[in-house]
Amino acid sequence: DTPRHQGMAKNTNMRWRLPLVCLLWELAMIVLFGVFVRFGAEADAHWEEEKQEMNLTSDIENDFYFRYPSFQDVHVMIFVGFGFLMTFLKRYGFGAVGFNFLLAAFGIQWALLMQGWFHSFKDGKILIGVENLINADFCVGSVCIAFGAILGKTSPIQLLVMTLFQVTLFSVNEYILLNLLHVKDAGGSMTIHTFGAYFGLTVTRILYRPNLEQSKDKQGSVYHSDLFAMIGTLYLWMYWPSFNSAISDHGDAQHRSAINTYCSLAACVLTTMAFSSMLQKKGKLDMVHIQNATLAGGVAVGTSAEMMLTPYGSLIVGSISGIVSTVGYVYFTPFLESRLHIQDTCGIHNLHAMPGLIGGIVGAITAAAATEDVYGKEGFIKAFDFTGVYQTRTPSIQGGFQAAGIVVSLLMAFVGGAIVGGILKLPIWGDAAAENCFEDGIYWEV
Amino acid sequence: DTPRHQGMAKNTNMRWRLPLVCLLWELAMIVLFGVFVRFGAEADAHWEEEKQEMNLTSDIENDFYFRYPSFQDVHVMIFVGFGFLMTFLKRYGFGAVGFNFLLAAFGIQWALLMQGWFHSFKDGKILIGVENLINADFCVGSVCIAFGAILGKTSPIQLLVMTLFQVTLFSVNEYILLNLLHVKDAGGSMTIHTFGAYFGLTVTRILYRPNLEQSKDKQGSVYHSDLFAMIGTLYLWMYWPSFNSAISDHGDAQHRSAINTYCSLAACVLTTMAFSSMLQKKGKLDMVHIQNATLAGGVAVGTSAEMMLTPYGSLIVGSISGIVSTVGYVYFTPFLESRLHIQDTCGIHNLHAMPGLIGGIVGAITAAAATEDVYGKEGFIKAFDFTGVYQTRTPSIQGGFQAAGIVVSLLMAFVGGAIVGGILKLPIWGDAAAENCFEDGIYWEV
Amino acid sequence: DTPRHQGMAKNTNMRWRLPLVCLLWELAMIVLFGVFVRFGAEADAHWEEEKQEMNLTSDIENDFYFRYPSFQDVHVMIFVGFGFLMTFLKRYGFGAVGFNFLLAAFGIQWALLMQGWFHSFKDGKILIGVENLINADFCVGSVCIAFGAILGKTSPIQLLVMTLFQVTLFSVNEYILLNLLHVKDAGGSMTIHTFGAYFGLTVTRILYRPNLEQSKDKQGSVYHSDLFAMIGTLYLWMYWPSFNSAISDHGDAQHRSAINTYCSLAACVLTTMAFSSMLQKKGKLDMVHIQNATLAGGVAVGTSAEMMLTPYGSLIVGSISGIVSTVGYVYFTPFLESRLHIQDTCGIHNLHAMPGLIGGIVGAITAAAATEDVYGKEGFIKAFDFTGVYQTRTPSIQGGFQAAGIVVSLLMAFVGGAIVGGILKLPIWGDAAAENCFEDGIYWEV
Repeated sequence: DTPRHQGMAKNTNMRWRLPLVCLLWELAMIVLFGVFVRFGAEADAHWEEEKQEMNLTSDIENDFYFRYPSFQDVHVMIFVGFGFLMTFLKRYGFGAVGFNFLLAAFGIQWALLMQGWFHSFKDGKILIGVENLINADFCVGSVCIAFGAILGKTSPIQLLVMTLFQVTLFSVNEYILLNLLHVKDAGGSMTIHTFGAYFGLTVTRILYRPNLEQSKDKQGSVYHSDLFAMIGTLYLWMYWPSFNSAISDHGDAQHRSAINTYCSLAACVLTTMAFSSMLQKKGKLDMVHIQNATLAGGVAVGTSAEMMLTPYGSLIVGSISGIVSTVGYVYFTPFLESRLHIQDTCGIHNLHAMPGLIGGIVGAITAAAATEDVYGKEGFIKAFDFTGVYQTRTPSIQGGFQAAGIVVSLLMAFVGGAIVGGILKLPIWGDAAAENCFEDGIYWEV
Repeated sequence: DTPRHQGMAKNTNMRWRLPLVCLLWELAMIVLFGVFVRFGAEADAHWEEEKQEMNLTSDIENDFYFRYPSFQDVHVMIFVGFGFLMTFLKRYGFGAVGFNFLLAAFGIQWALLMQGWFHSFKDGKILIGVENLINADFCVGSVCIAFGAILGKTSPIQLLVMTLFQVTLFSVNEYILLNLLHVKDAGGSMTIHTFGAYFGLTVTRILYRPNLEQSKDKQGSVYHSDLFAMIGTLYLWMYWPSFNSAISDHGDAQHRSAINTYCSLAACVLTTMAFSSMLQKKGKLDMVHIQNATLAGGVAVGTSAEMMLTPYGSLIVGSISGIVSTVGYVYFTPFLESRLHIQDTCGIHNLHAMPGLIGGIVGAITAAAATEDVYGKEGFIKAFDFTGVYQTRTPSIQGGFQAAGIVVSLLMAFVGGAIVGGILKLPIWGDAAAENCFEDGIYWEV
Repeated sequence: DTPRHQGMAKNTNMRWRLPLVCLLWELAMIVLFGVFVRFGAEADAHWEEEKQEMNLTSDIENDFYFRYPSFQDVHVMIFVGFGFLMTFLKRYGFGAVGFNFLLAAFGIQWALLMQGWFHSFKDGKILIGVENLINADFCVGSVCIAFGAILGKTSPIQLLVMTLFQVTLFSVNEYILLNLLHVKDAGGSMTIHTFGAYFGLTVTRILYRPNLEQSKDKQGSVYHSDLFAMIGTLYLWMYWPSFNSAISDHGDAQHRSAINTYCSLAACVLTTMAFSSMLQKKGKLDMVHIQNATLAGGVAVGTSAEMMLTPYGSLIVGSISGIVSTVGYVYFTPFLESRLHIQDTCGIHNLHAMPGLIGGIVGAITAAAATEDVYGKEGFIKAFDFTGVYQTRTPSIQGGFQAAGIVVSLLMAFVGGAIVGGILKLPIWGDAAAENCFEDGIYWEV
């Protein structure tokens, strides 16, 4: 079994704490789902009648067929993508993929409720369909990101507590951005990446462990663990066009989002490889960069992919984000740890925080630069939903609100992260001592 | 090479037996396909004319677009899902993924014929389309399940023989349930899981090896093999909503099946983690449970997912099945082995048999509780196909038939499994001695 | 670090060369995309107006919904399929999956341009949509194939140079076949496999390394690397029906392509297993065959899958290709190396070259055998696009042109491969000495 220094011994036995939290919370989910959640019109057996009322001639008009393939791709990103991306640590593969599985499985239930109350609430019921499933996965994506910062240093109970709070804050922030500021963010540069990453970085700052070098030998990868991590990388990379297009408007918007993301990601690989080689003395490539910075291109077009960013615009954004992210791994991560006491296990600052900010800014600029000429008269209104009270909003005002969305997301992340970090610091959650971090043997039968 | 005890030596050389079986059977497939199998209307080049006759205005009405994404997800579950789930054994990864590949590739061909004769036969020809491909994959799924019970203890020839018979029996059982009893079972709780699992358990009972402890050291996992197995787990878990919705009616039924399954699986993860920790002295999690019991929620809504089970109903079913399955791994599996001489390598009793029974029962109850109020007048008739001779069937009678479906599946599994087990016991199939079980070196160049 | 014989020392330091190539080429992409690439009508925000002009009543008519699920499957095949298939080498997993990632990410950008100029050029702009993304992935597939021949023996810079030229030649060859010869080749037996494989074999012949036995100990696999490779195999195998149907005509053609490919691949597994066992002295199976020859069935129906090949025809083609491919691994590969000095790391001659030729021939025969009776009057014209100047083309003439397509592809591969091989032989690209081949330590921080 795992040796512990006598003075540092912490009680990591989860025998009653973890089951209690899991079972009580699942019971709460059942009760809340029982009270609130019902099938939306397109998933309800009354759909036959609905179709007639809406004059739909074919079942293919059901939203299921517009979004289900993308939903499954997003689902793979959350569970295999994030899960395996984090298996790079030599002795924390079970924790990476297993705890990610646990927190995401809880998170999607809680997100269905939280987002449902804000967005799908009608006559006292939350009505769900495939778009809700995608949004729940998205919301949990922000928790998976934050998990990356504290990977290996927290107990599963802490992760569940963080998920509970982060999903709640995510939903509030999302409501402010999408409903109050009327901001576009289909791929979540702001709501998912900026918020999720800065939230996680704040939490890990609060949970700063001064003695973490005691487990330094376990913080690296081995040959095979790097290959497992590449499974995660590639699934995230390949399916990111689905991520950014999953909840875009039917038709051209979904189509365009996928193309922009495809282009941005392709460019990002080239600049990542270039800088990875350039910044190493012997010109060798570093798997850490390939596993992570190649994905920055997906993050950085998260807001603008459904806009008329254009393929060459996407190449530019992808190129820049790959450079920023790789440089971040080489220079910023050590700086953050040594100077700011931010211990960021997976380097989410480079993969999600900075590219997320780029994404928000690119989105604001792209929105501000929109013209009726480029979008067409109807396309312009549809793309930015300039109807009802927003009928008079101009592109430059929209750009301003987009920028405000970044600021709100940052504030929510810092304040929320600080509070949740404080809660997670309580000595009751069963986290391990510094010398036992990054070690599956603590929480798993190995 | 692998050492063998002199007295126990068995001839495991497959040099002529395996090629002979593979080639003759493939030849038989070619002949039978030549005589019987043709493209269905939607895959035939006459579709242009068909469209006009059916007054279809768009190619998108082709069933291909309703089902192909789900088909591919199911395909991944059968080949990567089941294949990698079984790679957990430290020295049987080639056999797990390779033999699963072999039996499934043969099985889908034979299933296209067997199911075709029962369900797609017209004017002397079997007319196939994407739904047939899904059904063939489903049928083979039941063989993959049974393979889990005998994993590591049988030769590839035995597996092919078992596949031949099990696909046949599956198709007969399926015909009795779907056509004679007019039972609903889109996700196959009864036809796939209950039948497949009890069939496999009966076979492994007949093939009982009293000296299996001689290969005990190889029956466990190593760190990396557990991560490979998690690839299988996650793909099964993520794509199970596609599995349960793949052959449901177009529109709301497919949509609803996916949502119910998503909910059930999410809840199942929480209760599995809870009980895995609770039942271990130090509260540590066991990868065996995480790899398997987390999937029980998908099995347990296999019959009812397309009904109006509701999201909270799904959470309840998923929660219960996770508990039952985990408890099964801790208490039932050792009991089955020591008392009943049922050696169940992968614990399919916990993952498929018990959750399959739960699924059948939940399906019967959900059907019996159906009302026109909940389904809508048209939805009610459509959901249970209460047309033609079944026009007068009431929900409670339907519930009774559903229950009868469970009993028939069990009988078919026990009787069929006993007969096929007897055939597989013949000393001509090249299986290994007890001390050489769970060892790739017997059948593979390593 | 890696030891090197003094006399053989080569400069493999890529510190300035690789970054320079990556950054300059990415810059070129940005400029060319800026000048030429725009969204096609279905991805442009003007789609709302387009819909009205084309009298489309639903967004579901957008090509995105017909092709996006298949696109994602193809995408997985290129990046995970080919990438992981090549991880079988014990010490070259990073290079396999990482360099494949690099060359494909560059290749798809260049392919969008090259193929765009030939096929999607309108009023000075290349208009792209989801079909262009699929075609770019297809084009890069041929580079991944060629990479298989030189795996472990080339620097990433050489791979990028090869990609630049091969994508160019691919596009020219594709234009000759599809536009000038009016040949059908939706799954690319000729354009992707025959061309890609013979191109790669010619390149590796030119780059012949007489002292390669110095790194012989690293040319094999280890237990775990073979399992990683099986991930690649299975994803290629499962998604091949999507590959062959991805750009077929909407409706029956896509549907039929998927069915034919599914059948061919299933049969191929059986004959591969048979011959793998038969050709080994003790009847044991060889993972090399299972990983590769099982896929030959997908290659061999690449041209004919969208035609009325029929399911039993597919079984025959799949059966034959599995045999040819397995026999190739046992007898041809050693012969090619010792006699013809063709060092083919992954055996692409067996997996792509020979099955590709079979595919071209089967396509020619199937086209020549087409009748209005089998296809229906309209289906016949639609299947072979016998409109406009091709209105009078008969099936037998079409068969002749199909055969000509094989010859053109071969010529282009041999001539192009020889030229590109010559360029790659220049001593400026940073390739490793023979004793350092198949070793990640040369180009990666390990």
